[in-house]
Amino acid sequence: MPRCSVLIVVGSKSDLDTMEEARKTLEGFGVSSELVVASAHRQPAKVRELAARVQEGGADVVIAGAGMAAHLAGTLASLTTVPVIGVPLLADSFGALDSLLSTVQMPAGVPVAVVSAGKAGAVNAAVLAVEILSLKDGSLKPRLSEYRKKFSS
Amino acid sequence: MPRCSVLIVVGSKSDLDTMEEARKTLEGFGVSSELVVASAHRQPAKVRELAARVQEGGADVVIAGAGMAAHLAGTLASLTTVPVIGVPLLADSFGALDSLLSTVQMPAGVPVAVVSAGKAGAVNAAVLAVEILSLKDGSLKPRLSEYRKKFSS
Amino acid sequence: MPRCSVLIVVGSKSDLDTMEEARKTLEGFGVSSELVVASAHRQPAKVRELAARVQEGGADVVIAGAGMAAHLAGTLASLTTVPVIGVPLLADSFGALDSLLSTVQMPAGVPVAVVSAGKAGAVNAAVLAVEILSLKDGSLKPRLSEYRKKFSS
Amino acid sequence: MPRCSVLIVVGSKSDLDTMEEARKTLEGFGVSSELVVASAHRQPAKVRELAARVQEGGADVVIAGAGMAAHLAGTLASLTTVPVIGVPLLADSFGALDSLLSTVQMPAGVPVAVVSAGKAGAVNAAVLAVEILSLKDGSLKPRLSEYRKKFSS
Amino acid sequence: MPRCSVLIVVGSKSDLDTMEEARKTLEGFGVSSELVVASAHRQPAKVRELAARVQEGGADVVIAGAGMAAHLAGTLASLTTVPVIGVPLLADSFGALDSLLSTVQMPAGVPVAVVSAGKAGAVNAAVLAVEILSLKDGSLKPRLSEYRKKFSS
Amino acid sequence: MPRCSVLIVVGSKSDLDTMEEARKTLEGFGVSSELVVASAHRQPAKVRELAARVQEGGADVVIAGAGMAAHLAGTLASLTTVPVIGVPLLADSFGALDSLLSTVQMPAGVPVAVVSAGKAGAVNAAVLAVEILSLKDGSLKPRLSEYRKKFSS
Amino acid sequence: MPRCSVLIVVGSKSDLDTMEEARKTLEGFGVSSELVVASAHRQPAKVRELAARVQEGGADVVIAGAGMAAHLAGTLASLTTVPVIGVPLLADSFGALDSLLSTVQMPAGVPVAVVSAGKAGAVNAAVLAVEILSLKDGSLKPRLSEYRKKFSS
Amino acid sequence: MPRCSVLIVVGSKSDLDTMEEARKTLEGFGVSSELVVASAHRQPAKVRELAARVQEGGADVVIAGAGMAAHLAGTLASLTTVPVIGVPLLADSFGALDSLLSTVQMPAGVPVAVVSAGKAGAVNAAVLAVEILSLKDGSLKPRLSEYRKKFSS
Repeated sequence: MPRCSVLIVVGSKSDLDTMEEARKTLEGFGVSSELVVASAHRQPAKVRELAARVQEGGADVVIAGAGMAAHLAGTLASLTTVPVIGVPLLADSFGALDSLLSTVQMPAGVPVAVVSAGKAGAVNAAVLAVEILSLKDGSLKPRLSEYRKKFSS
Repeated sequence: MPRCSVLIVVGSKSDLDTMEEARKTLEGFGVSSELVVASAHRQPAKVRELAARVQEGGADVVIAGAGMAAHLAGTLASLTTVPVIGVPLLADSFGALDSLLSTVQMPAGVPVAVVSAGKAGAVNAAVLAVEILSLKDGSLKPRLSEYRKKFSS
Repeated sequence: MPRCSVLIVVGSKSDLDTMEEARKTLEGFGVSSELVVASAHRQPAKVRELAARVQEGGADVVIAGAGMAAHLAGTLASLTTVPVIGVPLLADSFGALDSLLSTVQMPAGVPVAVVSAGKAGAVNAAVLAVEILSLKDGSLKPRLSEYRKKFSS
Repeated sequence: MPRCSVLIVVGSKSDLDTMEEARKTLEGFGVSSELVVASAHRQPAKVRELAARVQEGGADVVIAGAGMAAHLAGTLASLTTVPVIGVPLLADSFGALDSLLSTVQMPAGVPVAVVSAGKAGAVNAAVLAVEILSLKDGSLKPRLSEYRKKFSS
Repeated sequence: MPRCSVLIVVGSKSDLDTMEEARKTLEGFGVSSELVVASAHRQPAKVRELAARVQEGGADVVIAGAGMAAHLAGTLASLTTVPVIGVPLLADSFGALDSLLSTVQMPAGVPVAVVSAGKAGAVNAAVLAVEILSLKDGSLKPRLSEYRKKFSS
Repeated sequence: MPRCSVLIVVGSKSDLDTMEEARKTLEGFGVSSELVVASAHRQPAKVRELAARVQEGGADVVIAGAGMAAHLAGTLASLTTVPVIGVPLLADSFGALDSLLSTVQMPAGVPVAVVSAGKAGAVNAAVLAVEILSLKDGSLKPRLSEYRKKFSS
Repeated sequence: MPRCSVLIVVGSKSDLDTMEEARKTLEGFGVSSELVVASAHRQPAKVRELAARVQEGGADVVIAGAGMAAHLAGTLASLTTVPVIGVPLLADSFGALDSLLSTVQMPAGVPVAVVSAGKAGAVNAAVLAVEILSLKDGSLKPRLSEYRKKFSS
Repeated sequence: MPRCSVLIVVGSKSDLDTMEEARKTLEGFGVSSELVVASAHRQPAKVRELAARVQEGGADVVIAGAGMAAHLAGTLASLTTVPVIGVPLLADSFGALDSLLSTVQMPAGVPVAVVSAGKAGAVNAAVLAVEILSLKDGSLKPRLSEYRKKFSS
């Protein structure tokens, strides 16, 4: 894994399309990213490995999208100190209520930054990542303003 | 950690009293257990260590009680192949809805056995553990029947 | 009913397909099972009969899948002391919220082991049953590890 | 158990006070009743026995109050063909949402008549029982009208 | 409106199909019924008129099916002293949660007997009505037993 | 009942304190009001009478506060064509979810204007009533602006 | 923007069809309206501009329809003192629960008048607007009565 | 307002204690912050002013805590392009469900980073802010690691 600005992890292949929105939005901002499938429960070693690389400087921000008992963002947050953004994804039984509550209700000290559920959330995770990256890369500031202008006028 | 039949893990010191009900219930059945505090999000290394010992034969059954975005049971389940029982605990903002959905909605292949929320659940986790252990320790069968008789007559 | 390791009961014919996932998963582990339709409310005598056979040694573990006011797992749990696994199934009016709460919120002393709702839950009920059976049948341990490896790498 | 018009069953001693409201309301109408504690999950044999007596003519109407995974009313309904009225009672974790959904969502063919949760429900179960009994005992009709008048003017 | 045993009221034409299940079920028991469309909010005078006829002896039992802020059963219950059975119907925005809570949470003194949501509820309302009518018409008792036998064996 | 600008109806004496906030807020604006207890289910005739007086010009706006299966606002709305404002009040079993859904989900053609639950809602019902009245009484416009200024600076 | 009686704002183009029901209903009453797309979050300046025009007398009543974290009605209410009616619209993840709670739970002092979710709400917002306008335009009173009569007989 | 790293805004004085946890946590990291009370609905001009100062460089990150129909974070996010962190606060009627959904369900393009509800969320908002700031201020990295170590061992 070469270094990228944003590592996007998705818990299941079936949600790749939704999280691809995050990758495309980042691309629109000229921000490098990588989209990886890794399940917190089914591939815990792979998730730990991703977290280790991130913590060693492999990425500045992490985006994690998962459904149901969505532990992916929380697991990555527990293993790194970079900002971790969680996207609650929809599933059959409880809409996005299970994934939202599983992602947002982290204990004091280990935050996850949760955005809207589903596709709007994938886009918003990317925009939030750009807002965060713009703190150190000032060239992103005007791009954020332009992005806003496109739909605000 | 010497070997015990049931390892009880609780995610926060503030929930020790509730999960102590599980330990006492197991004691009533003559089943050895150990009660440990370890948070999936705040002490991920400790939780992994516990899982490793369990997987090496340190316990036959795991009970995990946690509140909010309760990942404890799911994390232990993702790292072991012994039965993991989850007890959803109550917190301020969403009662036990957040912990219930975070614990029960595991993806296909990595089950958690979830029982009632709160104290009734701590007791039930213990009784379920005894039912499971009775498969290999036949002497527990009559004790389970007696236990039932006490409140069924 | 000849002896089987796992008795799978489903509350309604319309949910047979979903619970068939449990049977197939058990088959993949080489664990014998039987899949029976019996409704707690519409066929209470049949359910009692099944419970009696289980309690006399007809099965080591019970899996019960039902929707709506899902009493099937709870009824079987109240009549046996073997581990009873409940799978909340979806219906029109409340998704799986009604079946989840009806199955999981058992009173102290009579546990049901609840897994995810719907098809993921049917698979997980089977895997949990294998984990339980592996306590007395050591040959299942390596099969569980292999099963995990298939999706964890 | 001598014959009474209404058999009131409550799932747990801790809810006796709430269901006592039903008994007192029936008394106010001059309708005989008996209040019994019996848990569907902890005392299934006792519940079956009560159902058998009811079905043999021991009572015209049954009222059942229970909390959590409230199967009491549904179990009695599955074993009798007299009207069974269910009162969802409150518990810590989910208010009365678990008991309401567990009581009301019965499958086609086996109805439970569910009233409001908690004390208002205990009173309403009694009034509903009187309305039902008034079909065969016409002397209850004017008492129902008087009862209404007391709070309607 | 000639006298009938059961008056079935449905709040909207669009729900006629669902409530027709109640009429057919009653017909199967040989119980006379009439199915009328009347909305508590859009046709309050018509609903009051129906209630008046019922209270004057026009029907022994009322079944009311409605969706959303379902006041139909409650309004009829507030104007009569015969048993009123409510069927919560599904709508787009909140499934049947709005109609269930609107129908069941009646204040002390004015009960509605609520059954399952949707089609299962329409059938159950009819069966409950037959159970109630069987108190004065003993010939319905064996029919109820036969009805149960059909699906219980 | 002499004419008043706003008729405030509350479904139960126990909620008088909460709805008194509406009366006091209106008084602060110099708007005449009357606060009456009348239950849609327990005193349907009184509610109809109030609606008739309103429809004959007795009030310009109606505020109705009720808990549980809150039909009060909807019933008044079904009988008048003046704006009816509903305040969902809290009760034990479901917080304000039952009263909110029962008040807001009115069928097309018969609106209720629902505001926040509880005390904030009682205040807001009054402010909304003043906003409505200001359409015909221009002197209320500057008072509304002053009211806003008090907390906006 | 020429003056109109009712300004209808919708937060997203994708919800234009739903809110068009409000415009058509107002048209049926002969009430002038204008339907504008403006998002509280994506076009805050446009929303502020609309509010300013309204506050300067551009409209007597505002209707705002939005989904998800629906701040549109609340934002308009915070910037004007005319009655603002909110219509909670449906989205994928939480039905209309998110938009309903986001619209209705306004703090004391800044009311929004919330109606049913979805299309029924769009119609009801229009009818409520007409009821409000009828306070100053008496000619609308008989039209409201006729409108009711059409579906009440 | 002198420049600070993090601007903390709270919607109501009554929630100052909860959000003070954020200020104290930031102080522990040596990060400058300012805690201001400003309500999105009651003081929209003040909120806009704060947003303008932020957008002109007055702060790198914004934290906004609010209850009920919590629009504060969303309003600030709609007016700035710095990262805005939302803390859903508890209120009487719906726990934190109303504030959570009102804060998190932002439309595509305008993200809010939502953390846990209540006090845990106030702490987590601060830690997340530090994680974000650490992208440009490398000296915060070791402090974050130390902070984690304190509770992880």
